Amino acid sequence: MFRGRLSHVILAAARYPHRQNELHTAQAAQKIVPLTDSLVQNLQKIVGDKNVSEAMAIREQHGKDESYHTCAPPQVVAFPESVEQVSGVAKLCNEHRVPLIPFGSGTGLEGGINAIRGGVCLDLMKMDKILAVHPEDFDCQVESGVTRKTLNNYLRDTGLWFPIDPGADASLCGMCSTSASGTNAVRYGTMRENVMNMEVVLADGRVIHTAGKDRRTKKTSAGYNLTNLFVGSEGTLGIITKATLRLHGIPEASVSAVCSFESIQEAVDTTVQVLQCGIPMARIEFLDEVSIDACNKYSKMNMKVAPSLFLEFSGSPKSLDDNAEIVGEIVKMNGGSDFKWATDVDERNLLWKTRHDILYACMALRPGCKPYSTDVCVPVSNLPRVVVESKKYIDEAGVVGPMVGHVGDGNFHVFFPVDQSNPDEVKTVHDVSVKMALLAQELNGTCTGEHGIGLGKRELLIREIGESGIEVMQQLKQTLDPNGILNPGKVFF
Amino acid sequence: MFRGRLSHVILAAARYPHRQNELHTAQAAQKIVPLTDSLVQNLQKIVGDKNVSEAMAIREQHGKDESYHTCAPPQVVAFPESVEQVSGVAKLCNEHRVPLIPFGSGTGLEGGINAIRGGVCLDLMKMDKILAVHPEDFDCQVESGVTRKTLNNYLRDTGLWFPIDPGADASLCGMCSTSASGTNAVRYGTMRENVMNMEVVLADGRVIHTAGKDRRTKKTSAGYNLTNLFVGSEGTLGIITKATLRLHGIPEASVSAVCSFESIQEAVDTTVQVLQCGIPMARIEFLDEVSIDACNKYSKMNMKVAPSLFLEFSGSPKSLDDNAEIVGEIVKMNGGSDFKWATDVDERNLLWKTRHDILYACMALRPGCKPYSTDVCVPVSNLPRVVVESKKYIDEAGVVGPMVGHVGDGNFHVFFPVDQSNPDEVKTVHDVSVKMALLAQELNGTCTGEHGIGLGKRELLIREIGESGIEVMQQLKQTLDPNGILNPGKVFF
Repeated sequence: MFRGRLSHVILAAARYPHRQNELHTAQAAQKIVPLTDSLVQNLQKIVGDKNVSEAMAIREQHGKDESYHTCAPPQVVAFPESVEQVSGVAKLCNEHRVPLIPFGSGTGLEGGINAIRGGVCLDLMKMDKILAVHPEDFDCQVESGVTRKTLNNYLRDTGLWFPIDPGADASLCGMCSTSASGTNAVRYGTMRENVMNMEVVLADGRVIHTAGKDRRTKKTSAGYNLTNLFVGSEGTLGIITKATLRLHGIPEASVSAVCSFESIQEAVDTTVQVLQCGIPMARIEFLDEVSIDACNKYSKMNMKVAPSLFLEFSGSPKSLDDNAEIVGEIVKMNGGSDFKWATDVDERNLLWKTRHDILYACMALRPGCKPYSTDVCVPVSNLPRVVVESKKYIDEAGVVGPMVGHVGDGNFHVFFPVDQSNPDEVKTVHDVSVKMALLAQELNGTCTGEHGIGLGKRELLIREIGESGIEVMQQLKQTLDPNGILNPGKVFF
Repeated sequence: MFRGRLSHVILAAARYPHRQNELHTAQAAQKIVPLTDSLVQNLQKIVGDKNVSEAMAIREQHGKDESYHTCAPPQVVAFPESVEQVSGVAKLCNEHRVPLIPFGSGTGLEGGINAIRGGVCLDLMKMDKILAVHPEDFDCQVESGVTRKTLNNYLRDTGLWFPIDPGADASLCGMCSTSASGTNAVRYGTMRENVMNMEVVLADGRVIHTAGKDRRTKKTSAGYNLTNLFVGSEGTLGIITKATLRLHGIPEASVSAVCSFESIQEAVDTTVQVLQCGIPMARIEFLDEVSIDACNKYSKMNMKVAPSLFLEFSGSPKSLDDNAEIVGEIVKMNGGSDFKWATDVDERNLLWKTRHDILYACMALRPGCKPYSTDVCVPVSNLPRVVVESKKYIDEAGVVGPMVGHVGDGNFHVFFPVDQSNPDEVKTVHDVSVKMALLAQELNGTCTGEHGIGLGKRELLIREIGESGIEVMQQLKQTLDPNGILNPGKVFF
C-alpha cells in the first residue's frame, strides 16, 4: 500500500546517492511555504516572546548537526520551558501542517535535525531539570535538556553513574531519540536497555508516559512496549520531554591500557577472542594507525602509530587482575605489544578524552572539512572480514578514512573528513560508505549500530529491513503522525 | 477517539471485576458464529488434513492455560508446519474475520490463549527446529515450538545457555510473546533484552523480520524497534514464527544457598540491601513460610518453615567467595540463619527444581484448585512495604496465599489456589489481588512484571498506563490488525 508513495524518491536516491544533498534541496524547495505572521504570534503566545527566534544565525545554528549534511535551517526556533508548552506547539503545528523538529545538543551525525522541509525547530535545552534521583533504586528522571555529563556530575556523590556515552556531551533525551550507545555499551548495553519510561508529546499534542506516569520498575509486561518504540524513533513519532533512566554503581576499581598490533586483522582477532572467552570487558575500542596518528597530533599524545586497542577492565581488584592477565595472553598470541597501563584517574581520563575527541582529531587532519561517518555493525565473528575489506575500499578510493570503533559490539566507524563543496569527493566517500554498508548487510549486519538513519541512511534502511518491514514502520508513523509534521524526511523519504 | 468504544465494557469490568468470567462468557456468546464448512476445508488445504482438529478434547486442551480462567475452547485447532502455512491461515482468517489465537506450550497464567470469541487456534509446536547456533557470536535462531529446555539441552556441549527461565518449560516464541522472565532476570534481564530479531506473520498474512532478514547484531539503530514492539504483545499484533536469541556463557562456577528469617520484612530488607551494595547476584528468590511448607510437602524437602531466601552466586571461584561472604554478613545483620549450601550440581538442581515446581506445590495445598496468580513489580525500595501489606491483605481475607518472588527485580507472586466453581472465593481472591496491584501502582509499580495482561489484568492496565497511553496502544493494534482477528479480547477489552 505504500509502494506508490515510496518508489519515486527512493529510486532517485538509490541511483544517485551522491546527490543526496541536491535531493534535499529539491524537496525543500518544493515544500517550504512561508510561515504566517499569525502562526509565529501564536507560537510566541505559547512559549513567550523571548523564547521565539527568527534570527538567521539562530536558525542556521539549529539547521545542522556535526555531520557533512548541508545546513537546512528551520523557519523559526522556539525554546519551550515546559511539557505544556511543547504540547501547545505540537497542537499548533499539527493544525497548520507545519513541520516540527525537536533539537537537543545538535551533536548527531546523520542530519537528524536538519529542517529539510522548513518548519519550527523546538530547542529543548531550556528544560534542563534533574527531576529525581533514587539512589536506592538505581534510577533517575531528567528533563529533555539535561546532558549526560551534567547528570554524571550531579550524581558524583552517590557512587552511581549513567554509563551510556556516545562521546559528545549529548542531551539524554536526544540520546533516547537516536538510541545512542558508545564505548561503554559492551558492558552496559545501549539506551534501549537503559530507558525505563519516557514522557512523550505526540504530534497532536497528547502527552503520554510510555510505561505509565511515575512508573519505574526494572521490568514490566504491562501492554505494548511503547518505551522502546519511541527510543530510536529520531523525533519522527513524538517529542521526548522526560526520561526515566537506569543508573549503575561505579565499579570498585578500573584500569585502562593500550596495546598495538602489526596489522588490523590481529587487533580485531584479539577482540573477537577476548569476547569469545567471555571476559567481561568494561570497554574495548579499536583505532587504526590513521586514527592513532590523528590522536597524537590533536591530543598531543605519543602513541605508537599502529592499529591499537584501548581496553578498560573494571570490577573488584581481584577479578580485574585475573581478566587483565587472560587478555594480556590473548594479545601476545596475536603478536600485540605489552600493555601500556593507565592506572591513575588522570591518566585514564586523558586516555578516554583522547578517544572521545577522535571525531575532532580526524577532522583536524583536513581543516575545514566536515565528518562523513560510517556506522556498520556486524556479528563479531564477521568483524575481521568487514574491517579488513573496508580498509581496502578506503585505500582503493585514495581517501583519508580513519577507523575507530566499539569493536566489542561489532560496531565501528570511519570518520571521513569531506569537503562539502566538492561533489566528486562527497561521491567518492559516499560510494565507499555504501560498499561498507552493503558488505555488513550481507554479513548479517546493519548499516547503523548507533547513529540512526537520519537523512543519510534512508535507502540503506529499505534494503536492510525489507519492504514489508518498512511498510509496517511507515504504518506506525502514519498512525501516530497522520499529517507527517514530526521531523519529516527523516528515517523515511 | 477510542473513548466511546472502550467505555461500556471497561466500566462493567471495573465495577464487577469478580464477574470477569461471566463477562467473557457473555462476550463470547454474543460474538461466536459457527465456522463454515468451506473455511475448515480451506484450513485443511493450507495445513493438511491431518493438521486440523475439531475434536472437543483437542479444542478444550487448547482453550485454557494453567490459570483459573474458565476454559474457552477455539472452534478448531490447526497445527501448521511452516511460516507459509501460518501466513496462509492468517490471510484466510483475516478475509473471513475469524479470530486467530497463537498457542505454544499453554503454560501462561493470565488466560492469554483462551478463545473467548471462538475462532482458529494455531498450535505452533510442530515448528520445532533449532535453525542455527552461532557459538562464536553468542546467538541462535529457533522456530516457534522450541522450548527453553530443548534449546538448553541442545546447547549442552557449547558452554553456552539461554538463561531466561519462567519456571515452566515454555516455548521460546511464547516467551517472546509474553515478555517472560523468571529467576535469572536479575542477572540476565528479560526476553526484551535477549531477543535480537523475530519472524512475525501479520494479521493479513504479510511476513516481516523485525530487524531485517538474517540480521543478528548486538545493537542496531536502524529504524523503529519492531522487535520490542512485538515482544510482549501477547499474540495481538502478530504471530511469532522464529526468534533470534542472545546466548550467554555458562558461568565458571556456581553455588546456591538457602537461609531463613524470623519475618518477611527481614528477608526482603536483606534483598534490598544486597542489591544496593551492587553484589552481582545470579538469583535471589523469596519464599514465605506458606510456600516453604508447600515445597516441603510437594518436593519432599525438609526446609525450616520460615520466610526464606534462595540465593545463587556465580562467576569466577574467587569472586563467588567474596560475594557470598558479603551477602552472608548482610543476612546475619538482618537476623537470618546461616547459609545451607547446595554446592554440587545435583543439590543445586534439586533446590531450583523445588523452586520451579512451586506453582504445582501451591496447588497441591488444595487439590482440584487452579492458580490465581498476582504479579506485581515495584522499585526495590518499595518492595518491603508491598510485601508486608500484601501479607496483611491475605491474612485479613482468610485465604491460602503462598508468596514467592523474584525479589531482586522487585517482582513477586501470590499463587492463590482457587476453586473455580465457587464465585465467592474467586471474588475474595480477586479483591486481594486488585488491592495488591493498586498498592503497587501507587508505589511506582506495575500490576504485571512478567505474566502479561491477558484476560486478567485489562482494567488494571488502563489505570496503569493512562488514557492517552492506552489510546496509543489501541491505535497500534488497530493499524496492524484492523479487523481485530488476532487474539481478540486480550490486553484490551
